[in-house]
Amino acid sequence: MYKVKVYVTLRESVLDPQGTAVKNSLHSMNYREVTDVRIGKYMELIIEKSDRDIEEVIHELCTRLLANTVIEDYRYEIEESVAQ
Amino acid sequence: MYKVKVYVTLRESVLDPQGTAVKNSLHSMNYREVTDVRIGKYMELIIEKSDRDIEEVIHELCTRLLANTVIEDYRYEIEESVAQ
Repeated sequence: MYKVKVYVTLRESVLDPQGTAVKNSLHSMNYREVTDVRIGKYMELIIEKSDRDIEEVIHELCTRLLANTVIEDYRYEIEESVAQ
Repeated sequence: MYKVKVYVTLRESVLDPQGTAVKNSLHSMNYREVTDVRIGKYMELIIEKSDRDIEEVIHELCTRLLANTVIEDYRYEIEESVAQ
């Protein structure tokens, strides 16, 4: 069993209106020292071991469903085996 | 200047309908090996150095705006960076 942490972020060149909104809110709360905010998604998946390579499976999950690779990048960390 | 990565996740005891929807989608795509999905937020902030302690500032940002601490937990990583 693997615990997989997936981070999906907008590509550098893509505008992030949600991040801009959060930054503006922080400025209006007087946190002027915050100069940039980018918002992404964080996902934790529990995946059973199978006969397929785990990296291959995660790559498929990300490109087919979890990330829109036209505008988003993803990276992941695999923690092997949660005893259960 | 600091680059701060903030991870906001639903507390363990809180239901995650978005995660369940993603898990069901993955099952319908035949990824039966995915047994659990939890979805959170990932934020990257650029924060200028100020005379306030950076950890104190981040703690405030998270509790006042970025996370709803009634149902969410947060953690963060600080990368000190100068170059731009």
